[in-house]
Amino acid sequence: MSAHGGLTGPVEIVGAGLIGTSVALACRRAGIDVLLTDASTEHLRTASGLGAGRPRAEDDEPQLVVVAVPPDHLGKAIHDALDAAGPATVVTDVGSVKSGPLTAVSGHPAVGRYVGGHPMAGSERSGPLAASDSLFDGRPWAVCPHPDATAGAVRRVEALVEVCGAIVVRLSPTEHDRAVARTSHLPHLLASLVAGTLTGATADHLALTGQGIRDVTRIAAGDPTLYSQIIGGNAGAVEELLRELRNRLDLALEAVAGRDRPGLESLLAQGVAGTRAIPGKHGGPPRPTATVLVAVPDHPGELARLFADAGDSGVNIEDVRIDHDPGRPVGLVELDVAEERAEQLLGALESRGWTAHR
Amino acid sequence: MSAHGGLTGPVEIVGAGLIGTSVALACRRAGIDVLLTDASTEHLRTASGLGAGRPRAEDDEPQLVVVAVPPDHLGKAIHDALDAAGPATVVTDVGSVKSGPLTAVSGHPAVGRYVGGHPMAGSERSGPLAASDSLFDGRPWAVCPHPDATAGAVRRVEALVEVCGAIVVRLSPTEHDRAVARTSHLPHLLASLVAGTLTGATADHLALTGQGIRDVTRIAAGDPTLYSQIIGGNAGAVEELLRELRNRLDLALEAVAGRDRPGLESLLAQGVAGTRAIPGKHGGPPRPTATVLVAVPDHPGELARLFADAGDSGVNIEDVRIDHDPGRPVGLVELDVAEERAEQLLGALESRGWTAHR
Repeated sequence: MSAHGGLTGPVEIVGAGLIGTSVALACRRAGIDVLLTDASTEHLRTASGLGAGRPRAEDDEPQLVVVAVPPDHLGKAIHDALDAAGPATVVTDVGSVKSGPLTAVSGHPAVGRYVGGHPMAGSERSGPLAASDSLFDGRPWAVCPHPDATAGAVRRVEALVEVCGAIVVRLSPTEHDRAVARTSHLPHLLASLVAGTLTGATADHLALTGQGIRDVTRIAAGDPTLYSQIIGGNAGAVEELLRELRNRLDLALEAVAGRDRPGLESLLAQGVAGTRAIPGKHGGPPRPTATVLVAVPDHPGELARLFADAGDSGVNIEDVRIDHDPGRPVGLVELDVAEERAEQLLGALESRGWTAHR
Repeated sequence: MSAHGGLTGPVEIVGAGLIGTSVALACRRAGIDVLLTDASTEHLRTASGLGAGRPRAEDDEPQLVVVAVPPDHLGKAIHDALDAAGPATVVTDVGSVKSGPLTAVSGHPAVGRYVGGHPMAGSERSGPLAASDSLFDGRPWAVCPHPDATAGAVRRVEALVEVCGAIVVRLSPTEHDRAVARTSHLPHLLASLVAGTLTGATADHLALTGQGIRDVTRIAAGDPTLYSQIIGGNAGAVEELLRELRNRLDLALEAVAGRDRPGLESLLAQGVAGTRAIPGKHGGPPRPTATVLVAVPDHPGELARLFADAGDSGVNIEDVRIDHDPGRPVGLVELDVAEERAEQLLGALESRGWTAHR
């Protein structure tokens, strides 16, 4: 077995956008030869200029083709890649949905050498200039073999995931699509619907906006064209969950309209149970954390001083939020730490003159 | 006019929990005499021990009574406070909903001296031990006069808000309840319903959980008993918005089930518009920000080093998120900065050896 689990290259990247160029850069970081293909000569020039690879030439024979085009073009692009592939070439893709593209190539004679993938990474930016060889470091990357996929093809795609520094999560295409419908597409859609209700609000109502709704609606700021392709491309699984959510919403409406407090409380308790089901830091079980709030003057250097003092306390910060208060130039920073360390951090910060509380 | 806009004390706090004790401590910080009342002698002892005030005696005559009991007990407690009040005493409360308590006292002969309030601050903890004199620093605090409230009563309640370091947002009780239904109660309920759908997910599906759903569902971890009182106490306004949201959900379901991409994209675009309606930092208009991602080893001191280096770059950090990646001990820290400063920060961090990208 070679250094990279059998992945020696060349690797061809079809689509030199954010994800494609980042995969290319990660391969280059590992010393693997990368061929670039893109309909846009500008993207191609930019990606080449970043050292992501070289344009593919006639007689190049890629060992692995990575299709990284927008969701609506995946099926055709994978099909084309299988058409062009030699008998030793494996094809994968990095699309957010896995069943649709597979259906598009299921009759292809070389379908055994196609194994879909989906790195759980991205950015609110797009294009090759936003790419990075470390975009996938430590991220989950779904690898989704279909029943006819060859073991060698699966191994080669998993080798790519490792080269990119990501963590393989193996799921069937159908399971993958059901999983992301629940963990990504449904939340995105609901965040968007809740955000939509804000367009009808007056400025004096919005003055009461707190951190809660900012968190709930943050992902709703994503590009509507891209997300309509992603969510629309997983319509079956999303529809099923939307119906489940509408049933829950009807129960909530019934409880609220009927002034049924126990019914409302029971729905809210199910929500608490759901938040506890989310895997904790580094994939382990969720750990109880406590929040320490600190008032921080809003100019460069103050956050640094805060984190230096927090670091000196020996307490590890699990999470950070900055609350932007209307009307005055002080930020409230929320530091999440293991519950049993909160007092230690609070004491350390107060002894250094910070205004802090739990 | 005296030092604190006519608020000289004593101030009586009815209910020495998190909010009541924090108001008491803020008053004490300003040198104002505070009287404490609570059904629980333990809370009373704890709050007194923290220096929040002294138990009320027979002949004490408070200038302002602050009712800070759980939502379901507000109406009766405000009524009792008006019964006990002398002719110079003003009564306020700190409840999350304003119409219900007002209805409970609307026939009271002294109702002109009642003006409701609602500080937009809290903690996931409760009880006097979690209290802080700086809990309200820089936070919005709704002051909600009804038509029969006297001007003097409104002034005295606004003086309390200033003593607590908060920002007055004046709204009628009805407007307040409609505002928080939209900016707080509806998002809480929807976050909870989305979180509820996670209870049906398998562990391998949850392995694909990203930061998005963590943000969407964070507030759903709140105490179901408290939130059923808050949301149930604002049932009319919440019901109206829930119906609006169900209509939006039906449109989404129709678009997804009917494979109507333009319809789906239009709903998502409304969501983007909604996120842009949220007031920006310090109440100003939203500013475009860019995100710089940095890989940070997960142990004490590394975040401090990162923020020290970021501080040295002279770029102000607007927001911070830490992404907990399953499977490896490296955190991804997302730093939000003004869009035009992102390159400067990125260059500064890379020159100090950080693995960072946009």
